[in-house]
Amino acid sequence: MLKRPVILVTNDDGIYAPGIKFITNLAKQFGDVMVVAPDKPQSGMGHAITINATLRIQKTNYHGVETEYACSGTPVDCVKMAVNHVLKDRPDLVISGINHGSNSSINVIYSGTMSAAIEGALEGTPSIGFSLCDYSSDADFSQAQTFIAHLIEQSLKNKMPKGVCLNVNIPKLPAAQIKGIKVVRQARGNWVERFEERQDPYGRNYYWLTGEFVNFEPEACDTDEWALANGYLSVVPTQADMTAHALLNDIKHFES
Amino acid sequence: MLKRPVILVTNDDGIYAPGIKFITNLAKQFGDVMVVAPDKPQSGMGHAITINATLRIQKTNYHGVETEYACSGTPVDCVKMAVNHVLKDRPDLVISGINHGSNSSINVIYSGTMSAAIEGALEGTPSIGFSLCDYSSDADFSQAQTFIAHLIEQSLKNKMPKGVCLNVNIPKLPAAQIKGIKVVRQARGNWVERFEERQDPYGRNYYWLTGEFVNFEPEACDTDEWALANGYLSVVPTQADMTAHALLNDIKHFES
Repeated sequence: MLKRPVILVTNDDGIYAPGIKFITNLAKQFGDVMVVAPDKPQSGMGHAITINATLRIQKTNYHGVETEYACSGTPVDCVKMAVNHVLKDRPDLVISGINHGSNSSINVIYSGTMSAAIEGALEGTPSIGFSLCDYSSDADFSQAQTFIAHLIEQSLKNKMPKGVCLNVNIPKLPAAQIKGIKVVRQARGNWVERFEERQDPYGRNYYWLTGEFVNFEPEACDTDEWALANGYLSVVPTQADMTAHALLNDIKHFES
Repeated sequence: MLKRPVILVTNDDGIYAPGIKFITNLAKQFGDVMVVAPDKPQSGMGHAITINATLRIQKTNYHGVETEYACSGTPVDCVKMAVNHVLKDRPDLVISGINHGSNSSINVIYSGTMSAAIEGALEGTPSIGFSLCDYSSDADFSQAQTFIAHLIEQSLKNKMPKGVCLNVNIPKLPAAQIKGIKVVRQARGNWVERFEERQDPYGRNYYWLTGEFVNFEPEACDTDEWALANGYLSVVPTQADMTAHALLNDIKHFES
């Protein structure tokens, strides 16, 4: 009998979030699932790691799988601890998510969900980050179930090059209106921020970071933003190499 | 008279670190300097932003510049607050650093220093992250002063494309042994982690993340690791687009 693949599931919304509950159950169809996820919400943590403080892990039993831990660290810490401490071996697939909210375009760089997937890829494991474009607490993760299952299946069959993972975003649509899956690039875009100023009861100012996302290329039809706006799941192959290779020859004036 | 450029300085080691003190003084030669930097060490914070908590800023007077604030957030928060709240305009240059320790190869993705520079580039400003390959508290930042000044000068003269910044690493060498500056790519490499297990006074385990960096391509001579090992400052053009463009046509099997 063939050995079942080992699938590590993590996220950034915390181990008790509905999105990780859904994907853990779905992943059980494809292999032996283990969960190592943050013990509290860690959204917007990017590729942060814990080096100025200690880490703790605690056995939990929320997902009904044998190997299941809540970790005090970031999503990237969770992957490192799972691979190097809990499992002491590479899993066959890392799944991060399903995130409550979009990680398309520039959001990839701020996202704890995607950083966990990138970390999985760095560790040499096929990795997928899933995000649903719906922040509401009663978001329905099941509408795109068939497509999510297809992507898990394909990821187990066809290995990606080392260091590359998938950034999958799912439109907020009923199943009947989802048109399919598109392989696309990360749209150029950014947040326009506004800091909301408030006063604490002692008269001191404090601030909330808020903002609006702006798509810099709304006309392009090969981006994740386009795919999502047109009823498709977007799949962006995402890498940890941040070199702007095309510029290497153009900036020789910096040399001396 | 020409308007002097506005230079925003930040870092991830905190506003009182020697590295930011050195670069702030040097930057004064080139423009009007403002400092918005973390009020405590924020190493390894990657591109984290503060969305589940509030932010505070406090006027300081450690660097002897008029506009100078310690911010409770991450390095990326500092850049966002500086641009959108403190300055309410784009500076002409963002300098992050000088970091105490290397940010070459894959370290770019974990680095708060580099995330601040990338955020600057995302905001549309030429940005440089500087790091010295020396973790010691009495590290000498002045040895490469001529080269650092050259890079600041070039960055003010020759604008980089939007969304691209410079990742500059400085070898730990006396001035006479530094050979120059090389424009190179990010070396493929990663950390092999080990979690050091200890027990608290109450008998519960806790962990420290430790590890060793491994260069996956020690033979390549067009990488930042090569430049540093051979006596050069490494300059990597670094972008926020994480799409693995070369793969877009190879992974159509994920579509459906």
